[in-house]
Amino acid sequence: MTETDFPQIRDDAAPSLPPILQAMTGHRTEHPPVWFMRQAGRSLPEYRQAREGISMLESCLDPELAAEITCQPVRRHGVDAAVLYSDIMVPLALAGVGVRIEPGVGPVLDHPVRTATDVDALVSRGPGDASAIAKAAQLVICELGEAVPLIGFAGAPFTIAAYLVQGGPSRDHLAARAMMHAEPAAWARLMDWVADLDADFLTAQLAGGARAVQLFDSWAGSLSAADYRHHVAPHSIRALEGIGRDTPVVHFAVNSSHLLAELARVAGEASDHPVLGVDHRVPLDHALASLMVERLEMPLQGNINPALLFAGDEALHAEAASVVESGRRAPGHVVNLGHGVPADADPDTLTRLVEYIHSL
Amino acid sequence: MTETDFPQIRDDAAPSLPPILQAMTGHRTEHPPVWFMRQAGRSLPEYRQAREGISMLESCLDPELAAEITCQPVRRHGVDAAVLYSDIMVPLALAGVGVRIEPGVGPVLDHPVRTATDVDALVSRGPGDASAIAKAAQLVICELGEAVPLIGFAGAPFTIAAYLVQGGPSRDHLAARAMMHAEPAAWARLMDWVADLDADFLTAQLAGGARAVQLFDSWAGSLSAADYRHHVAPHSIRALEGIGRDTPVVHFAVNSSHLLAELARVAGEASDHPVLGVDHRVPLDHALASLMVERLEMPLQGNINPALLFAGDEALHAEAASVVESGRRAPGHVVNLGHGVPADADPDTLTRLVEYIHSL
Repeated sequence: MTETDFPQIRDDAAPSLPPILQAMTGHRTEHPPVWFMRQAGRSLPEYRQAREGISMLESCLDPELAAEITCQPVRRHGVDAAVLYSDIMVPLALAGVGVRIEPGVGPVLDHPVRTATDVDALVSRGPGDASAIAKAAQLVICELGEAVPLIGFAGAPFTIAAYLVQGGPSRDHLAARAMMHAEPAAWARLMDWVADLDADFLTAQLAGGARAVQLFDSWAGSLSAADYRHHVAPHSIRALEGIGRDTPVVHFAVNSSHLLAELARVAGEASDHPVLGVDHRVPLDHALASLMVERLEMPLQGNINPALLFAGDEALHAEAASVVESGRRAPGHVVNLGHGVPADADPDTLTRLVEYIHSL
Repeated sequence: MTETDFPQIRDDAAPSLPPILQAMTGHRTEHPPVWFMRQAGRSLPEYRQAREGISMLESCLDPELAAEITCQPVRRHGVDAAVLYSDIMVPLALAGVGVRIEPGVGPVLDHPVRTATDVDALVSRGPGDASAIAKAAQLVICELGEAVPLIGFAGAPFTIAAYLVQGGPSRDHLAARAMMHAEPAAWARLMDWVADLDADFLTAQLAGGARAVQLFDSWAGSLSAADYRHHVAPHSIRALEGIGRDTPVVHFAVNSSHLLAELARVAGEASDHPVLGVDHRVPLDHALASLMVERLEMPLQGNINPALLFAGDEALHAEAASVVESGRRAPGHVVNLGHGVPADADPDTLTRLVEYIHSL
C-alpha cells in the first residue's frame, strides 16, 4: 500500500451512510458517533438475566440469544453501532478445539499447544461451520435495520495463539513470546491457521450483514515493535484478507503506545478504510501526530478513560469533551472508551454519557 | 532541576567504584555490569528451600533469612549487584496495616481503602520500626563487602496505593484510577502517607549499607501521562526525598513506553544520579532518543526480553548482545531483564547469561 491510498479527510458529508460509517470512512460528522467496547455484556441487568444458566460459548452459538444480547445496549444507550456479541474463542470452538470460558478466569484450553508436534496436530483441523454466527448477525440487522450498523469482530491471531500456547490466561504470555523465537516455523504455521479461522469468522459476520469489523489484539502490547512486525503483523493481515477492501477495519490493542504505527499499518494493508483504536493512555492528538510522522494518518477510535465511569458525571463528561476535542484533528473520529466497559459500571452512567456525547 | 544538572557521559573511569555504580553515575565500564530484577526468588531451588514453611512477609522481616536470600543469586550467578530481598508491601506491614501475600494471588488487604474516611483512618498510623530491614542490609554487606554493592528498593506510592484502594491485585487498578479523579484531596493524602512510609523503608536500607535504590512502579503504565504527572509524580518524588542526592536512583515501570520522560523526570528531580529502567518493549536507543528530545538523557537499565530465557542460549545471547550494543549509546548502561525473572526460569540459563554479558 502506498501513502496516497490512505483516506484523506473529506468535508463533504456522506449522508447515505450512518454517522459511524461516515467517521470510519474519513468524513466529518455533525455529532460524534459513539459505541463502547464490551457494551453488550455484564454491565447490563438484562444481559445477566438472558445469560442465566447458559455458558458463555453456548450463548455465543445460539443465534437468537446472541442477537438479543447484541441489541440490548443499542436499545438502552442509543449508541451508534451494535457490536456482535461473541467471544474471541468462538472460532476455536467452531473448529472443535476443547476450550471453555471459566467465569472469573477466562478461556481455558483442554490441551495447551507447546511443541511443533502439538501445532501440527492442531492445524490439521478445518475451520468448522460458522452459519450460527452469520444467522446471529442477520437477526441483529432484522431488528436494527440500516440506521445502526453492526460491527463484526474477532480476536487477532496473536491473542488467540497466546491462549493456545499458554493453555489459559497469563499476565505475560511468555510461552507464546518464547515460541515465536524458539520455533519460528511452527509459530508461523499456528498463526496462519488461527488467521484462517478468523477470516472465516469475520466473513460469516459480514455475510450476515455486518458493515465494519474490529480486530482486537488484546495482548499485542506485550511485544516489542520488532517482534510484532516479524512474528505477528503478517498473520493479522492474513486474518483480514477475506473481508474486502471496502470494509472499514478498526484495529485495536491496549497497552500499545509503542506499536501504534505497526497496528495502523496492518489495518491500512487490509482495508481502504483503516481505523486505529487507541486506548486511554495516549491522547488522540498525540496518537495522530505519531501516525503523521509515518504518513499513516487515518480515522481514530477511542479513548475515554474507563476509570472516569466511577468518578461522577462531571469528571466523566469533562473527559469525554476533551477526547472529542482531541479527536477533531483526526480524519474521522469514532468515540469509544479506551478499553472495554467494566463489569461493574453503572449502565445509567453510560446512557447519560452517550446523550452528552451526542450533544457535542 | 535544570538540564545541566543531568550527568554527562564521562570517559574517565572511576576505578574506586564497583562497575554497576560506575554505570549508574554516568561512567563507561570495561564490561557491562548486570543484575536481574527478582534475581532473589522463586527461580532458585536454594530460595524455595530457605522459604519452606515461612510466609513471604515473615521471611522479609527476618534479617538473617532476608540477607541469606539476597546473597543467593550473587553467589550463584556472579551478578554485579545484590538487591535486597523484600516486598513492596513490607512498609505497610511495618505500619501495622493488615496485609498478607497470598501465594499465586499477590498482596491482599484486610480492609480496602475506598473513601476519604477510610483514608483518614489509615493515614493516622505512623511508619513503624524498620530496624529489621536495616539489619538485613547490614548482614548482606557483611557477606558481600564493597565489591558487589547492595541495591535497595521500594514499590512506588501509586503501585502500593493501587493495592490499598483495590484491596488486592487487579488488572486495571480502576478503583485507584477513579479515586484520583473523584476524591483528589483524599488521594493526595493517601499518596503522601505511602510516600513517607517508602522514604522510611528506603532510608533504613541505605542506613544498613545499600549504595543505590530502585523505585518500582509496577502499575504506573496503566496511567496517561497527564494523570501520572498530576496525581502520581509529586508523591514518588516525595518518597525519594530522604535518600540524599548522591544516591543513584533507578526508576522503573513496565508498560510505560508512553511515560518514559515522566519517569526519568522523577528520578532526576530526586537524585543527581538518576537512572531510567526500560522494559523489553522499547529498544534502549529509542528510549534514549525520546529522553534526548526532552533533554533528559541519563544512564539506562534494561532490557533483555525475558521470553528469550525460554528460547535457547543462541537466541538469548543474540538478544543480550543487541541490548548491550543499543545501550552503548546511553551515558551509562546497567544490563537487566526487561521485567522480573520468571518463576520457572532455569537458573543455569541465567548463570550462563551473566558469563556471556561479562564477556562482551
